[in-house]
Amino acid sequence: MRTGRWVRAIEDRAISTHDLRRIARRRLPRAVFDAVDGGAGDERTLRANEAAYERLWLRPRALADAKTRDLRTTVLGTPVSMPVMLSPCGFARMCDSQAELAVARAAARAGTVFAVSGASSYPLEEVAAAAPGPQWYQLYMAKARAETDALLDRVEAAGYPVLCVTIDSPVSPTRERDFHNRLTVPLKPSPRLLVEGMSRPAWSLDFLLGGPGASPADTLGLAQARVAYWNLARTVTDMTVVTWDDIVWLRERWKGPLVLKGVQRGDEVPRIADLGVDAVIVSNHGARNLDGTRATVEVLPEVVDAAAGRMEVYLDGGIRRGADVLRALALGARACFVGRPYMFALAAAGEQGVDHVLSIFRAELEKGMALTGCSRLADIDGSLLERRPAAEPAGMR
Amino acid sequence: MRTGRWVRAIEDRAISTHDLRRIARRRLPRAVFDAVDGGAGDERTLRANEAAYERLWLRPRALADAKTRDLRTTVLGTPVSMPVMLSPCGFARMCDSQAELAVARAAARAGTVFAVSGASSYPLEEVAAAAPGPQWYQLYMAKARAETDALLDRVEAAGYPVLCVTIDSPVSPTRERDFHNRLTVPLKPSPRLLVEGMSRPAWSLDFLLGGPGASPADTLGLAQARVAYWNLARTVTDMTVVTWDDIVWLRERWKGPLVLKGVQRGDEVPRIADLGVDAVIVSNHGARNLDGTRATVEVLPEVVDAAAGRMEVYLDGGIRRGADVLRALALGARACFVGRPYMFALAAAGEQGVDHVLSIFRAELEKGMALTGCSRLADIDGSLLERRPAAEPAGMR
Amino acid sequence: MRTGRWVRAIEDRAISTHDLRRIARRRLPRAVFDAVDGGAGDERTLRANEAAYERLWLRPRALADAKTRDLRTTVLGTPVSMPVMLSPCGFARMCDSQAELAVARAAARAGTVFAVSGASSYPLEEVAAAAPGPQWYQLYMAKARAETDALLDRVEAAGYPVLCVTIDSPVSPTRERDFHNRLTVPLKPSPRLLVEGMSRPAWSLDFLLGGPGASPADTLGLAQARVAYWNLARTVTDMTVVTWDDIVWLRERWKGPLVLKGVQRGDEVPRIADLGVDAVIVSNHGARNLDGTRATVEVLPEVVDAAAGRMEVYLDGGIRRGADVLRALALGARACFVGRPYMFALAAAGEQGVDHVLSIFRAELEKGMALTGCSRLADIDGSLLERRPAAEPAGMR
Amino acid sequence: MRTGRWVRAIEDRAISTHDLRRIARRRLPRAVFDAVDGGAGDERTLRANEAAYERLWLRPRALADAKTRDLRTTVLGTPVSMPVMLSPCGFARMCDSQAELAVARAAARAGTVFAVSGASSYPLEEVAAAAPGPQWYQLYMAKARAETDALLDRVEAAGYPVLCVTIDSPVSPTRERDFHNRLTVPLKPSPRLLVEGMSRPAWSLDFLLGGPGASPADTLGLAQARVAYWNLARTVTDMTVVTWDDIVWLRERWKGPLVLKGVQRGDEVPRIADLGVDAVIVSNHGARNLDGTRATVEVLPEVVDAAAGRMEVYLDGGIRRGADVLRALALGARACFVGRPYMFALAAAGEQGVDHVLSIFRAELEKGMALTGCSRLADIDGSLLERRPAAEPAGMR
Repeated sequence: MRTGRWVRAIEDRAISTHDLRRIARRRLPRAVFDAVDGGAGDERTLRANEAAYERLWLRPRALADAKTRDLRTTVLGTPVSMPVMLSPCGFARMCDSQAELAVARAAARAGTVFAVSGASSYPLEEVAAAAPGPQWYQLYMAKARAETDALLDRVEAAGYPVLCVTIDSPVSPTRERDFHNRLTVPLKPSPRLLVEGMSRPAWSLDFLLGGPGASPADTLGLAQARVAYWNLARTVTDMTVVTWDDIVWLRERWKGPLVLKGVQRGDEVPRIADLGVDAVIVSNHGARNLDGTRATVEVLPEVVDAAAGRMEVYLDGGIRRGADVLRALALGARACFVGRPYMFALAAAGEQGVDHVLSIFRAELEKGMALTGCSRLADIDGSLLERRPAAEPAGMR
Repeated sequence: MRTGRWVRAIEDRAISTHDLRRIARRRLPRAVFDAVDGGAGDERTLRANEAAYERLWLRPRALADAKTRDLRTTVLGTPVSMPVMLSPCGFARMCDSQAELAVARAAARAGTVFAVSGASSYPLEEVAAAAPGPQWYQLYMAKARAETDALLDRVEAAGYPVLCVTIDSPVSPTRERDFHNRLTVPLKPSPRLLVEGMSRPAWSLDFLLGGPGASPADTLGLAQARVAYWNLARTVTDMTVVTWDDIVWLRERWKGPLVLKGVQRGDEVPRIADLGVDAVIVSNHGARNLDGTRATVEVLPEVVDAAAGRMEVYLDGGIRRGADVLRALALGARACFVGRPYMFALAAAGEQGVDHVLSIFRAELEKGMALTGCSRLADIDGSLLERRPAAEPAGMR
Repeated sequence: MRTGRWVRAIEDRAISTHDLRRIARRRLPRAVFDAVDGGAGDERTLRANEAAYERLWLRPRALADAKTRDLRTTVLGTPVSMPVMLSPCGFARMCDSQAELAVARAAARAGTVFAVSGASSYPLEEVAAAAPGPQWYQLYMAKARAETDALLDRVEAAGYPVLCVTIDSPVSPTRERDFHNRLTVPLKPSPRLLVEGMSRPAWSLDFLLGGPGASPADTLGLAQARVAYWNLARTVTDMTVVTWDDIVWLRERWKGPLVLKGVQRGDEVPRIADLGVDAVIVSNHGARNLDGTRATVEVLPEVVDAAAGRMEVYLDGGIRRGADVLRALALGARACFVGRPYMFALAAAGEQGVDHVLSIFRAELEKGMALTGCSRLADIDGSLLERRPAAEPAGMR
Repeated sequence: MRTGRWVRAIEDRAISTHDLRRIARRRLPRAVFDAVDGGAGDERTLRANEAAYERLWLRPRALADAKTRDLRTTVLGTPVSMPVMLSPCGFARMCDSQAELAVARAAARAGTVFAVSGASSYPLEEVAAAAPGPQWYQLYMAKARAETDALLDRVEAAGYPVLCVTIDSPVSPTRERDFHNRLTVPLKPSPRLLVEGMSRPAWSLDFLLGGPGASPADTLGLAQARVAYWNLARTVTDMTVVTWDDIVWLRERWKGPLVLKGVQRGDEVPRIADLGVDAVIVSNHGARNLDGTRATVEVLPEVVDAAAGRMEVYLDGGIRRGADVLRALALGARACFVGRPYMFALAAAGEQGVDHVLSIFRAELEKGMALTGCSRLADIDGSLLERRPAAEPAGMR
């Protein structure tokens, strides 16, 4: 669907994730772009997730012997080539027909983890088969444990080594851009969509003629998923409330490493560790569930403190630069997840786009390490940061 | 005047109070919109009332068993279905000819309190008769106690259980938008108004052909009300200064629960409680009287502290989201009042608009509780909040 | 030159000093407006002088018996009808041909002090004769004491009771708007000025046909004043450096009350008091001399503390609202000076404009007192204020 | 290439460095302007470098006897006429064909130091010969010491008394404006550049017909410089990592005063002093290497403290006003470097532009001293500053 000419093009056209976002905005119908780009409510948390990094100023070391930079680390024992992993994002087929298959292949090539969404566009088995991994599976629990149990059978059979359960989505969220765009899942034909589609022929052809994907219900693997994930419920629609008891059950049920995604306060972390959870992801669901929650990088320090080395701590949300990864690591994260950047890369240039966004993060992080005098990730410590207000525009010109 | 088709329309068109405001802005003549939307002076407090919530960041609980959410509470012993009540707003007939009658019916359907303004468009008896309540009466005291006494006879006869006296309006305020719009009460025909009216035919027809309402003087029930409420006095026009003595007299005169609206500092609260007042509303009159006063949610904690459980404390001003209600409750408010949101809803879609805005607040608050792990209002505590600066825009794009 | 019709017009068109500024901007040639409106350098202090009031939030008293409001006070023993005085502003004839004569008459009618500029457009004797006062004389010292001595003879003969010496203008300032507008004093004809003038016929006629005024040199009364006051020197041009010795000499020479204008730090205040100075004006010359100095209302508390009641302390700079006066008084100022507001009022509507701007300050201050529960100026205390950040715009709409 | 008429023009057209920047923007092709103006990444540090001065408010002394102002000081024993020196900036020929030759002559006329860039457009010998100095040489170390050694032979032979080694450029930076402008070094003809050039004929003629300059490789004096200095590497390209060992070697090798440019934290300063380094420049490479580093004036105090008088401390970055120099000196800098201001001046008006920008800094600094009561640089102390937030715009107008 895309040619080698395209590959060169994306590298020549995009040097940052912001460029990829701009290109994706031109290529995608508005409603699809907004479905990826948008957040809950007034999108304050959406902006905060990114803006919080602007208050973490860097204090580079001088004269350190950082002639080489080693970005490798391990996550739950698995080696990765850099501390940047790919977040679970639902329905990637909105961006490109190869969707999670393309992402899985690019992640494997880059030597990092792809956490496959429980709302993926392709069945979890197909994604698992697409690339050698490492891949993790992100679970939305069903209300009935039997359903979850059956789903976990599939996850085990497909060979996912790590389970990552989302705990921050008890009810359907309110994404107001989607409401105003009249977005539905699956996409329903409408005059407006038709017009949008005709003005984006590259996307439209790929969407209509690309691989088949799966229905949302199949993907979620849950009966009640016919209530679409981002059902713009004017009344409150229950998704599944995940409770302490569910984690106890899950810890019993799942033999491999278990990760909790969606922790937002430190005071609950010791109890989570007590249950035998292996890692937590500080996440506010990419600012897509509850507006007004704190930026994840603001939450990170209290979670790292509370984890006290008993669990690995990852961060998800607002990472747009390699230097943001460096900041999160300086605050104690073991690694970071990125979501929108690879979704936009996928929209901008398909699988090669994902290759490119991963190379951007790698190059930016390596430069950041070189310029702050760090040879290894372990050299990234708290002395590299100072909290100050963000920069203001420079007066009158 | 409006059809069932409209009802569906407003639910399809507005998912937030911001949407309702936008729709109202298109439907109302500019001078009328501004009369509802505007505030005193430079409107700093107007912006502050809303913006203060942006500095109260949320700390959601994870894994709490919030499978059901109970929004019910009581105010002065009266059960309400949620801690969101309707503020007294004068002259609602500007927005819709059914005015307070429509609001009263919608509030009763929603099971919450409507505090009827002392400057209502319909006589207080008609509003009381329009719906089963619970309704409160908001009193502007007259300079002569005999007048106030006579008015209270009417309030008692109409069956209002609770009296809410406004203490923050000693002089006519300066609303500069109204001055520049040459707004008068009652509305006087002018070429400008004619042009505006013709470009807003739906509003104009409803305004001219709708129910009769009452004259401001009848409504205020006060002789001196011929000085219109928002007389844009260039010199200072005395309204009534309410003093400590007046509260003593009022406490004697009114047998039911007594509420003081317009408290803005904590150090006066113990003395108010000593006089036997039952509740206070932290309010700066919707930022319509004195510009530069603090945002009400910034004032709330010192009033809650000073009340020390002896009086219920409510908050009014700047509430635009269900999560704002949650924030106010986390800071110790028992319940909140909203004003402009229902006035805009009334302007946007009449009685069904008010139904809709109440359902928006209910759904948003319930989602907020679910997403922060709260089953009951009592679960909403101070640990859910952290003060931080508001989010800045996310750098260059 | 202006009719009674105009008087009504300005009251109907302007309800705030911001309105008067807007009207002046339309009436004046750009270069003249900028000469009044502009400040030094990047105009940070210009903005800061105003913006600092936005961080001083009000805490109104409730239930106080402020049925009447008394705005009267004394300054250096002279009764004034309100604590708002008129700053010395040079070359008022740029705004209106009646210039200082009109201002003097309006100030006298309003019962407050007009501090006549040492760079006035009319000779100091004519201004003194124009109205009964109270008027003060603002002195720019000459390098040669004999010159200053001769000037003070004139000031005494003209009957000015109070001398106010400016101590913050040792060198010619850099006002970049004037540079880019190629402004000269006196105004030189140029094609650009001609075009501007023809598009502002009301101003042009008044400027060309109005009273004669005086040459800048006569006005300043100083030989070296042929170096125009705002000479846009690319190199540094010395005005007069006023030193401690000069104040000692001046205190000997001038028998009446002596005021120092331009104090910007508290640590020098005790020594000033020791010299027998009667009052100081916290001023940064309306942000027109050195950009980057602190807002005057930020400086005020340290000067009030240091004065310790030995001298009266006034404030000048950034006062745009009656509530700003209230804030300054709450921080310990005895009274305030306003400059640009009356210059714009003069430009907007001549003498009646000055009447109007004084009535705006009076009404706004009285409303502010009523709404904060103050009957007398003495009731305005520090408990009315709380420092918080300024209001941000209210999120996305 | 330019006439006397031009000289007058620039003095009449520019009164500040901001004016010079605006004029340069109109005269230069976009890609060239951006190459000078831009910074790394999101340009947060670029904005911060300037904006940080807005938080350093001035506290002028009154009544001090600052009738004369002496701006002279010494740097490493060399007298300079003012504490403003010229930073090393690469490839000045982009701005004007006389490039470093013109800058050297203007600096010598002004009696201040020009630090010649290791990436200068003319061979270091020609720059040294162009003017009597004082000139310093800024060194980029080569990976092989033999190469650096040979280069230092040339530097010594050319008579540079002081060596300034840059320690903050271990890898090629990412300047995204250059990427999007497809800038290459040396400039390669392209249709876009042709169009740009034709619309900027003055610049184009000067660029094509002016002096020959040198190739980047010759200038850098390093074999690997064929990797252009701002190679927009998508992968990480190693420049030279300068380590502690290199400084030890350099201190041995270079007999004259040695300056380290690029210090950004205080905790490394004592060790630097221990090695016998004579001075450090607090610099983040003009915000061109790593985005997110602190503003240099924010870093300055901790470096001054750590230097404890053992080394001179200079500052580079964000200086746009004479008052900024005053602020840096008040925080303990001995002198400042400016870069972009003279590059823009060079682009705006060639050698006379550089004369003019130096006269602007001199006049602004002298005015700042006069207005804060400082006769000598030694009078500039910490009491002149107070940290407060930057000024916000003044509300609604």
